[in-house]
Amino acid sequence: MAKISIFGGKGMIGSQITALFERCGNDVETIGRDYDGHELGDIIVLAVKFPDLAPLVETHGKHFVGKIVIDITNPISFGNLDELLVPQGTSSAEILAEKLPQSQVVKGFNINFSNSVANAQVKGNPASFVFASDSSEAKQAIFTALEKSGAKLVDAGNLQKARLLESAGLLLINLAVSGQIQRDGGLVIV
Amino acid sequence: MAKISIFGGKGMIGSQITALFERCGNDVETIGRDYDGHELGDIIVLAVKFPDLAPLVETHGKHFVGKIVIDITNPISFGNLDELLVPQGTSSAEILAEKLPQSQVVKGFNINFSNSVANAQVKGNPASFVFASDSSEAKQAIFTALEKSGAKLVDAGNLQKARLLESAGLLLINLAVSGQIQRDGGLVIV
Repeated sequence: MAKISIFGGKGMIGSQITALFERCGNDVETIGRDYDGHELGDIIVLAVKFPDLAPLVETHGKHFVGKIVIDITNPISFGNLDELLVPQGTSSAEILAEKLPQSQVVKGFNINFSNSVANAQVKGNPASFVFASDSSEAKQAIFTALEKSGAKLVDAGNLQKARLLESAGLLLINLAVSGQIQRDGGLVIV
Repeated sequence: MAKISIFGGKGMIGSQITALFERCGNDVETIGRDYDGHELGDIIVLAVKFPDLAPLVETHGKHFVGKIVIDITNPISFGNLDELLVPQGTSSAEILAEKLPQSQVVKGFNINFSNSVANAQVKGNPASFVFASDSSEAKQAIFTALEKSGAKLVDAGNLQKARLLESAGLLLINLAVSGQIQRDGGLVIV
């Protein structure tokens, strides 16, 4: 059992991630805009949209020291689904890691649609939860917290692989916008 | 029924693509190193490895005028699975399109492992064949040629989306090398 703090844990995807970690037997708290600076769990999920990520870290990052921090964002604008909003040669997660040198930053949950997170099911298939991080210990802690999920838990490698995951996120969002993936569908690795 | 010419059609992935198009009722020919310059089919598949793509086009590209040309390559080196071998901000397919301005270049088949191409099955799921091209007509011609395949046929959008598909290819190859995807597994979109 891990103690897990979820910023944005009442949002569309955040509430699903909250339900997922709870279902797996973890001690989960959701954190809102009124966060008072209390000690956070070992695993922090930043379940906010990309434009809100930098301000959140600016304000509260000092409380993330020594913690595992999961970045779930897709750095996209619906006005331009051709390109990511981060510079070429980096990723939202790598930019976050530069700002949080004393945290273990992990990319995850950005290629999952919210409908398939809590139950870890995509149209009858086990969902694939894919994580990238330079910290093997951080990924292992997340895998342990999710071992009862029923999902396929995948280690995508080092944090640089967040670039590939964010590209995959943009691809999936394109397919959703063009109606080729439904809300209960998505990408699965079998 | 389309007439389809497959360079490298006797190779590991090429033979699977050949079998796939044949199974769907098309007229398929495989082309080897002894290609004599005869008129090619309406759809040309360049089922060669990335390092062989540029020399092939240099030698035979004059015969591709007016044709649909499918680039299946993953621009990777197994010595460095962190990065693609093409510059940031482009893709193998976009580079190919610059060299073949009178062809309709399509990216496809680069996120499918060879074992799941001919039968269009990935561990009991329909395989996902994903195509990107600036030519809607080219994608439609390929969809028509594959409509009996049983696969989920996906339009990823314009040719720039080849960047996302090539990133997805690199991700999948990483997962295969780390043993998290088996030879009969892969990525499916449901």
